[in-house]
Amino acid sequence: MRVGFVQFDPKFGEIDLNIRKAMALAESGEADLMVLPEFFNTGYLLASKEEAFDLSEEIPRGKTTIALCDLAARKKMHIVAGLIERAGDLLFNAAVLVGPNGYIATYRKMHLFNEEKFWFSSGDLGFDVHDIGDCRVGIMICFDWFFPESMRILALKGAEVICHSANLVLPYCQDAMKVRCLENRVYAVTANRTGEERRDGKCFRYTGKSQITGPNADILYRASDVVDEVGSVEIEPRQARSKKINVNNDLFADRRIEYYGELLK
Amino acid sequence: MRVGFVQFDPKFGEIDLNIRKAMALAESGEADLMVLPEFFNTGYLLASKEEAFDLSEEIPRGKTTIALCDLAARKKMHIVAGLIERAGDLLFNAAVLVGPNGYIATYRKMHLFNEEKFWFSSGDLGFDVHDIGDCRVGIMICFDWFFPESMRILALKGAEVICHSANLVLPYCQDAMKVRCLENRVYAVTANRTGEERRDGKCFRYTGKSQITGPNADILYRASDVVDEVGSVEIEPRQARSKKINVNNDLFADRRIEYYGELLK
Repeated sequence: MRVGFVQFDPKFGEIDLNIRKAMALAESGEADLMVLPEFFNTGYLLASKEEAFDLSEEIPRGKTTIALCDLAARKKMHIVAGLIERAGDLLFNAAVLVGPNGYIATYRKMHLFNEEKFWFSSGDLGFDVHDIGDCRVGIMICFDWFFPESMRILALKGAEVICHSANLVLPYCQDAMKVRCLENRVYAVTANRTGEERRDGKCFRYTGKSQITGPNADILYRASDVVDEVGSVEIEPRQARSKKINVNNDLFADRRIEYYGELLK
Repeated sequence: MRVGFVQFDPKFGEIDLNIRKAMALAESGEADLMVLPEFFNTGYLLASKEEAFDLSEEIPRGKTTIALCDLAARKKMHIVAGLIERAGDLLFNAAVLVGPNGYIATYRKMHLFNEEKFWFSSGDLGFDVHDIGDCRVGIMICFDWFFPESMRILALKGAEVICHSANLVLPYCQDAMKVRCLENRVYAVTANRTGEERRDGKCFRYTGKSQITGPNADILYRASDVVDEVGSVEIEPRQARSKKINVNNDLFADRRIEYYGELLK
């Protein structure tokens, strides 16, 4: 199967423009599973909870999810993309998974970064895995990568491909994803944005370099740090099904869970 | 405080020679806490359980632990070093922690690599943390690094410095230790060996590049890949006490343990 990402520079608050641009980029690529950045439709640097509320949408009936479903049906692909979800009075940093037959699932970011804690509720759905036919997919958003538990749980639950929507500003993630994929023997698609946002004296520079990483710590594709880019590679999800790294070691069977209790204290 | 490592090329089976060489190297360095490689006194590439038994020692009354205690007392330092432990009929891939006042603790490798499973019992003591005055120390051995749980548990239990005795043959560890230290905000001292061992058609090449890594993914010292080397750096263990990475994120407080149950299944 072929997995890919869309990398671009969303314009803050311009949802229709960002959807059109992301759709055009996605349409220009070839992938069975395409990942778009965190908040690809709105931009990232919020100034207030009210603003977050104004830019939020219900899932699946908001226009962003509808547009993604349309594209998924037309291109016969699956898509993971990040947006602000409104659920009653609550807002979540969310990502949707959609396919040729429509909306499939929502992930709500479990580990909120910095001021996101002012605007969003922490994810309350845990880490789910979805069988999309070609492979089993897990989703995480940006800062979730920092916590080894995120990808570990997704992999333990059977995910072979981690769809990672991101708006990265720290310099560590792309190289760290080699370790995350190696320790779990999975593939990951990190879709990052480019550009910068300035508001109220703050300046966020997004690092681009969207990346597709393989189960042997191999960088299968790394994008530029600045330009719009659609990248994709052929992968073999069954490579991620076995956790054997040699005849005597299986990374999951070798876990000593009877000694891991401290992880939940 | 100052932490350091001894890197050299142990000669297989020549315990007295290896102890003398390691002691001389350790003595030439300056550190409050010095880490020696896995199996520093025996070499690594065993051919049988009988051989492992012949090269094993009881802890603390074997000659290797006694020699380490002598050095620790003379230099007023703490030392972590790897050796084959005999405990009744069982053998363990172990590391001892000794200090100026003698033997302190034993760690038994929790995640055995490849054929080690034929010679050794899996560690049955879990992951303990030891307060040595200047800092709190956690111990792991070689392949333990591959499992994010090892350093996570040590850090959750309060370790500020991870003493990592190793005989590395895969190419990943040194770079991966940047991620391990970053995700847990701890220091690590990876003491690796150099050289190669050949037996029965097998050839193991050890990668050297012993490394001291800091809590911001910073390589504080990286040794050569081939020569004997004693390295040390000044560190500030209190840097590892706070897990804050910005005003709103604390890497431990932000863990969502109520959603982490899968880790123990």
